[in-house]
Amino acid sequence: MQNEINAFIGCESGFDEASAVIFGAPFDSTTSYRPGARFGPAAIRGESFGIETYSPYQDKDLSDIRVFDSGNLELRFGSPESALEDIENRTAEILSAGKLPVMLGGEHLVTLGAFRACAKKYDNDIYLIHFDAHADLREEYLGQRLSHACVIRRCHDIVGDGRIFQFGIRSGDREEFLFAKNHTEMFPTKVQGVDFGALPRVIERLKGKRVYLTIDFDVLDPAFFCGTGTPEAGGASFNEILEAVIMIGRELDIIGADLNELSPHYDQSGASTAIACKLLRELLLAVLCP
Amino acid sequence: MQNEINAFIGCESGFDEASAVIFGAPFDSTTSYRPGARFGPAAIRGESFGIETYSPYQDKDLSDIRVFDSGNLELRFGSPESALEDIENRTAEILSAGKLPVMLGGEHLVTLGAFRACAKKYDNDIYLIHFDAHADLREEYLGQRLSHACVIRRCHDIVGDGRIFQFGIRSGDREEFLFAKNHTEMFPTKVQGVDFGALPRVIERLKGKRVYLTIDFDVLDPAFFCGTGTPEAGGASFNEILEAVIMIGRELDIIGADLNELSPHYDQSGASTAIACKLLRELLLAVLCP
Amino acid sequence: MQNEINAFIGCESGFDEASAVIFGAPFDSTTSYRPGARFGPAAIRGESFGIETYSPYQDKDLSDIRVFDSGNLELRFGSPESALEDIENRTAEILSAGKLPVMLGGEHLVTLGAFRACAKKYDNDIYLIHFDAHADLREEYLGQRLSHACVIRRCHDIVGDGRIFQFGIRSGDREEFLFAKNHTEMFPTKVQGVDFGALPRVIERLKGKRVYLTIDFDVLDPAFFCGTGTPEAGGASFNEILEAVIMIGRELDIIGADLNELSPHYDQSGASTAIACKLLRELLLAVLCP
Amino acid sequence: MQNEINAFIGCESGFDEASAVIFGAPFDSTTSYRPGARFGPAAIRGESFGIETYSPYQDKDLSDIRVFDSGNLELRFGSPESALEDIENRTAEILSAGKLPVMLGGEHLVTLGAFRACAKKYDNDIYLIHFDAHADLREEYLGQRLSHACVIRRCHDIVGDGRIFQFGIRSGDREEFLFAKNHTEMFPTKVQGVDFGALPRVIERLKGKRVYLTIDFDVLDPAFFCGTGTPEAGGASFNEILEAVIMIGRELDIIGADLNELSPHYDQSGASTAIACKLLRELLLAVLCP
Amino acid sequence: MQNEINAFIGCESGFDEASAVIFGAPFDSTTSYRPGARFGPAAIRGESFGIETYSPYQDKDLSDIRVFDSGNLELRFGSPESALEDIENRTAEILSAGKLPVMLGGEHLVTLGAFRACAKKYDNDIYLIHFDAHADLREEYLGQRLSHACVIRRCHDIVGDGRIFQFGIRSGDREEFLFAKNHTEMFPTKVQGVDFGALPRVIERLKGKRVYLTIDFDVLDPAFFCGTGTPEAGGASFNEILEAVIMIGRELDIIGADLNELSPHYDQSGASTAIACKLLRELLLAVLCP
Amino acid sequence: MQNEINAFIGCESGFDEASAVIFGAPFDSTTSYRPGARFGPAAIRGESFGIETYSPYQDKDLSDIRVFDSGNLELRFGSPESALEDIENRTAEILSAGKLPVMLGGEHLVTLGAFRACAKKYDNDIYLIHFDAHADLREEYLGQRLSHACVIRRCHDIVGDGRIFQFGIRSGDREEFLFAKNHTEMFPTKVQGVDFGALPRVIERLKGKRVYLTIDFDVLDPAFFCGTGTPEAGGASFNEILEAVIMIGRELDIIGADLNELSPHYDQSGASTAIACKLLRELLLAVLCP
Repeated sequence: MQNEINAFIGCESGFDEASAVIFGAPFDSTTSYRPGARFGPAAIRGESFGIETYSPYQDKDLSDIRVFDSGNLELRFGSPESALEDIENRTAEILSAGKLPVMLGGEHLVTLGAFRACAKKYDNDIYLIHFDAHADLREEYLGQRLSHACVIRRCHDIVGDGRIFQFGIRSGDREEFLFAKNHTEMFPTKVQGVDFGALPRVIERLKGKRVYLTIDFDVLDPAFFCGTGTPEAGGASFNEILEAVIMIGRELDIIGADLNELSPHYDQSGASTAIACKLLRELLLAVLCP
Repeated sequence: MQNEINAFIGCESGFDEASAVIFGAPFDSTTSYRPGARFGPAAIRGESFGIETYSPYQDKDLSDIRVFDSGNLELRFGSPESALEDIENRTAEILSAGKLPVMLGGEHLVTLGAFRACAKKYDNDIYLIHFDAHADLREEYLGQRLSHACVIRRCHDIVGDGRIFQFGIRSGDREEFLFAKNHTEMFPTKVQGVDFGALPRVIERLKGKRVYLTIDFDVLDPAFFCGTGTPEAGGASFNEILEAVIMIGRELDIIGADLNELSPHYDQSGASTAIACKLLRELLLAVLCP
Repeated sequence: MQNEINAFIGCESGFDEASAVIFGAPFDSTTSYRPGARFGPAAIRGESFGIETYSPYQDKDLSDIRVFDSGNLELRFGSPESALEDIENRTAEILSAGKLPVMLGGEHLVTLGAFRACAKKYDNDIYLIHFDAHADLREEYLGQRLSHACVIRRCHDIVGDGRIFQFGIRSGDREEFLFAKNHTEMFPTKVQGVDFGALPRVIERLKGKRVYLTIDFDVLDPAFFCGTGTPEAGGASFNEILEAVIMIGRELDIIGADLNELSPHYDQSGASTAIACKLLRELLLAVLCP
Repeated sequence: MQNEINAFIGCESGFDEASAVIFGAPFDSTTSYRPGARFGPAAIRGESFGIETYSPYQDKDLSDIRVFDSGNLELRFGSPESALEDIENRTAEILSAGKLPVMLGGEHLVTLGAFRACAKKYDNDIYLIHFDAHADLREEYLGQRLSHACVIRRCHDIVGDGRIFQFGIRSGDREEFLFAKNHTEMFPTKVQGVDFGALPRVIERLKGKRVYLTIDFDVLDPAFFCGTGTPEAGGASFNEILEAVIMIGRELDIIGADLNELSPHYDQSGASTAIACKLLRELLLAVLCP
Repeated sequence: MQNEINAFIGCESGFDEASAVIFGAPFDSTTSYRPGARFGPAAIRGESFGIETYSPYQDKDLSDIRVFDSGNLELRFGSPESALEDIENRTAEILSAGKLPVMLGGEHLVTLGAFRACAKKYDNDIYLIHFDAHADLREEYLGQRLSHACVIRRCHDIVGDGRIFQFGIRSGDREEFLFAKNHTEMFPTKVQGVDFGALPRVIERLKGKRVYLTIDFDVLDPAFFCGTGTPEAGGASFNEILEAVIMIGRELDIIGADLNELSPHYDQSGASTAIACKLLRELLLAVLCP
Repeated sequence: MQNEINAFIGCESGFDEASAVIFGAPFDSTTSYRPGARFGPAAIRGESFGIETYSPYQDKDLSDIRVFDSGNLELRFGSPESALEDIENRTAEILSAGKLPVMLGGEHLVTLGAFRACAKKYDNDIYLIHFDAHADLREEYLGQRLSHACVIRRCHDIVGDGRIFQFGIRSGDREEFLFAKNHTEMFPTKVQGVDFGALPRVIERLKGKRVYLTIDFDVLDPAFFCGTGTPEAGGASFNEILEAVIMIGRELDIIGADLNELSPHYDQSGASTAIACKLLRELLLAVLCP
């Protein structure tokens, strides 16, 4: 009789043969509005058996690739810095084994830990593609510099101007939008909706470069994804994000990725969790399956 | 003083004068993921008083037609074959009285019972239009041939190639999509969304033929219809389905129809149940009201 | 130490310096289907801290304008007439101080109280723009003339033909749609969805005239706004309403406005409440910020 | 094929042969805190199939007695007086046929309608046993005399001092408790819990007299019955109420009864609705089955 | 890097050194009222990290014993007989390795599979202690003999009269209570509540005999445990069950045990799931820790 | 027109004339299991209008005393030390004005801030009465010394042995119970339930001494109070806690008090929030009203 393994569907390969490693970062201590993203990774794994391993969109199957799911990190609630260290260490370990780290948040601050590890490995010569409703460009928030609302600003501290591409943004204070004008490439949302029109050009520009992809699920409109702490109307449809993820995964050299801010308590129907599962499947297939 | 009758709004006609008969098939024993479709028919009836009997889309009113609502069948949980028999018998009874059977599921397996009765009556010379997120074309599922995941395959066993038209499909295993290539007319969903573009041509082709219409509500995107056991992103909008239903109802010779897989426990707001009510109203008006 | 004030985010100005005054009308006694709109105003205030005061759509901030939030009226449940009187009095008080009244419902009947005050002040020379899923044009409903289902008809009693413009309507009985043909300007919803195409022309026509704006949140499709008592599929997207509100707020002389029918019990995720907050912010900025 | 009848389990007898008649009074317009009691009667009927018709407590079965369930009244929301009239008329009709009226509320105000009919029939020579958390003895509430918070005071207006017996009371303002000291027989709840110790003496005193029994489900502790608009801790256990109901039903001449204030929206688990069903069964068996 | 194991807290021992083996039987296909018990085992494991491994009641710790959690069986929905076979096989495998089988249901029918395996091993010379709200003694239910409502009757088919002891029973039809009078030792619930007074005598009588213990969580009053498909008021308190479980576990020779009918969808607060975890901990400690 | 004040019912007195000051500490960043206690204070204020200001238990009314509600502190999520400082400062400010501080948590860690301020003012010559399900005596938890699971240990660091009295405890690790044996006065819960029998003796012993009272709502059994992050079965009934609070409030010299760990997301029915309101009312009346 065997132990039952706790893994995302179709990701039961061993560590050594895997080309990608999933891990959960169930942390949400700096969440200022509605916590619960800590439950995201467990929900994604638990509900992954409601989807198929096969993608009719890409005509690929998770059984064609090899992914190891290493479960969740045990992070210290109330201590952002030590949580980020643990995340950075886990990411570095995966990178040094030559595998792709794929992190499941948690609040968006967790991105900083994984991004630090990638930046260190590649001497800061990396790019960031960021899908989100919120700019996350504050210098500090409620007195803290390590906050979900500052995470992209902290990434900017590391890689500097011209390397961060932001899509779907439709919330922030005036200063964040001003900062973006001068320091990041932001394609903000319009009255008529999100604007992903520049994505093909961005992809063209980033070809051959190392790209870290971070997706805050609230880039999706709450109609499609209500299971998140700070729902912000006027976002992307599922199909818009699906198309973007497949395009990015296929065309670019992804060195790390994360999916954040699923808060299952606000997902009474399970539809948001199902989207999270589906996007993870599509991302893995787009990046790993030639 | 009279008994209160338990019927869908505006469907209080007697059996004899009715041209259509509604019945519920509250069965979900083979549901492998999240049960609850058994509560669908009761929810549709109970909440039907939240909509009007009048359709501004079609400028028709349920008071213009005659429908009898015969309530729910009592089906044996845990025994798919006997449940299908009971459904087949009820459908045959309605057909032999020259009336249109309209079934409310329940899980999608219930379609097989009604479809069998129709096929028998017309010597298998019938066609099937199928709206769904899932292909439901497995030969067997978890060791069973009578499963919600096999129901269209079982219908294919009866009528054979070229008579089944599938719209909205975006989930299944690789074999199901391969099977569809050779045996059914499937118009699968694309990265950009569902593709109903072929519907006018299909309708043209089926004019004058006998058509059974089965709608799994999960053909709708979970943004519009989250109250279902297996929500699958990337589906149709309400208006897309509404237009399809009215077109099919008006143009084709519908010999039987069903609406399946509303699971009200996942419909906290009631919006999915309200859609189910509205689509049933529009279907009845489109088919029955000249 | 100070008392904590209960106000919508960014609306903490004093009464005297304010150019607009918010008040809540938490009344839902005539709601015939599912009550709960009484909890709408409290939810909007309480959750307003989940949004920013800055609008990237308009590049304006609530800190640029002055709004006083006077809290909720205490209305008598079970007594529609006395509730309407209290609402009329509060609105008149705001109008006589030369400020814009902005009411948060409550069921839609509350509009009548505020509309009466405006009509009195301007000798009935006012116009009404109405966004809603329901026509609300009944002469009476369940034996009552003061009902949510009659509220626009009661407004018509006051201002007469040709002054009421209705958008998004997709539910009602046959008589209401007939009444609209002869007495209001209705742009009913089509099978393909809402039709706001006439809005620019309507705005052109109403320039320079006094306009009262009433929005029943159920004009939005339940995909975007499920937190309401009578969800009606086939409605507007958030972006469609956002665009309409900004256009109307900027171009027309708004003399009063209300937002109605948020019922937070049906908004498990909070996404509807967040939309209500966001639309209120955008409305205030569009009307008040030059 | 027959219509499906909408009735409480085991209460499918015809009107003529029935010795008791159930009807629903789905009214909650004066509810000042959290509405929803209007959904109580439908929930009780719908969920009654989760209990048995047999009571092991009394060794009796609903199949041994004859009860007719006449469904719900259609009451005017927003108009307490007309709702009370309709309730009084229905009750009078049942009384004049020599049958026992059993009403399912609704908010507690509905009791007044049924009590009026009973008082008229018996020239005010009737007694009232009242189980509740709240005294309901206000002269007026929020400016209204016809309010749930005044209902027992209105009954006192009819029958006067010494005829009203109140159990379980643990909430009210000071004036209500003072009024009770002089005008009703109240056995208020203590710090240690409800006090039904006087019940046997009260029963002894009321033997041979005509008694109307009204139960507000919130007399139960919210641990046992949380599905109500105004949960008030420190109440009775299920067994305490069960024992009281059986004792009263067996020993006294019950001329009318009601069960009120189930609000199913606050009963996520269904446990409160199940208690309501079970108490209704036990009450019917205790009163009707010798 | 290791895989994360999916196990009940403190039960991470290997199979070989374990003295007890937990397995889940997530089956609920014959549930006639409200399904969802299939989600019970996953909920118990997932939420077990909310409790401690240490019991202050017994001053024992799960770290003092060795338990292997083998995860969930994959059972065929819609096929009770094949599900029972799989359960029987797993139980037999555990028994033949000399370990204690501890099953987590699932609906109560699953008990039959484990009980069959135990009976076979010991030539039917075993006894059954049964805690439940429902008698489960029907000869058949809705046309099926393999139903949750018949499971104890099926056990009686195997071991015959005088070997089954039933506590907490307060629901069933008249025939079941008559059957119990002649064939089982039932201590039915009274108007004043459950009656466990006979338990010490029963324990005395069963000392030295082989006992299978089955607990349907609905033996608990819904106040304490509302997360179950058929809540039945008038049940045991948590402390009453806790005391019974510890007494039985310490005094008797338990050869198999199961805990059934947690349906987490009805446990919004998680309190029922927490009780399930706590009782499992106490049971393991009482039986296994000298 | 006035601003609406956000205060607990009946606590609208000004700061200067008040004898007690309420403040909220909406912090839950160290919560390791299920966060949400941050929403507790807002829920208590918002729902306080569902209870009366009059207590029939004590025959006292909030209108007889003077309490100022200063609203919620803005605390830094993710930074326990700075949150504790802010709490300590607010408490000190209230103490130095000669008023009683009454804090509403938040997770239990917040007690440390208020307790520090009281200890400083009285040179550590204070006593602590602690009601809780959990011992909270860990030296550290998940690597942190400032954690909800360590809060009473941190209080012990300040006042030392013999000054802490713990009631209701039924969860912790072995070391905590050993620590309690030597350093605190713990009256742990038994198999039969909580044991408050020693309370009168403790009160006798503490007469004339300065006592800080901290109540974690999870001392209540989840049957009575399910709205908390870590429900632990086997707790106190509402009446047991009510009696204890009144006794302590009347007999002892309370220098500070707090009520913690209401997590309204787990309180679907609102019954837990209603208990929190009621206990706060009773506490204020017992302490302040002679």
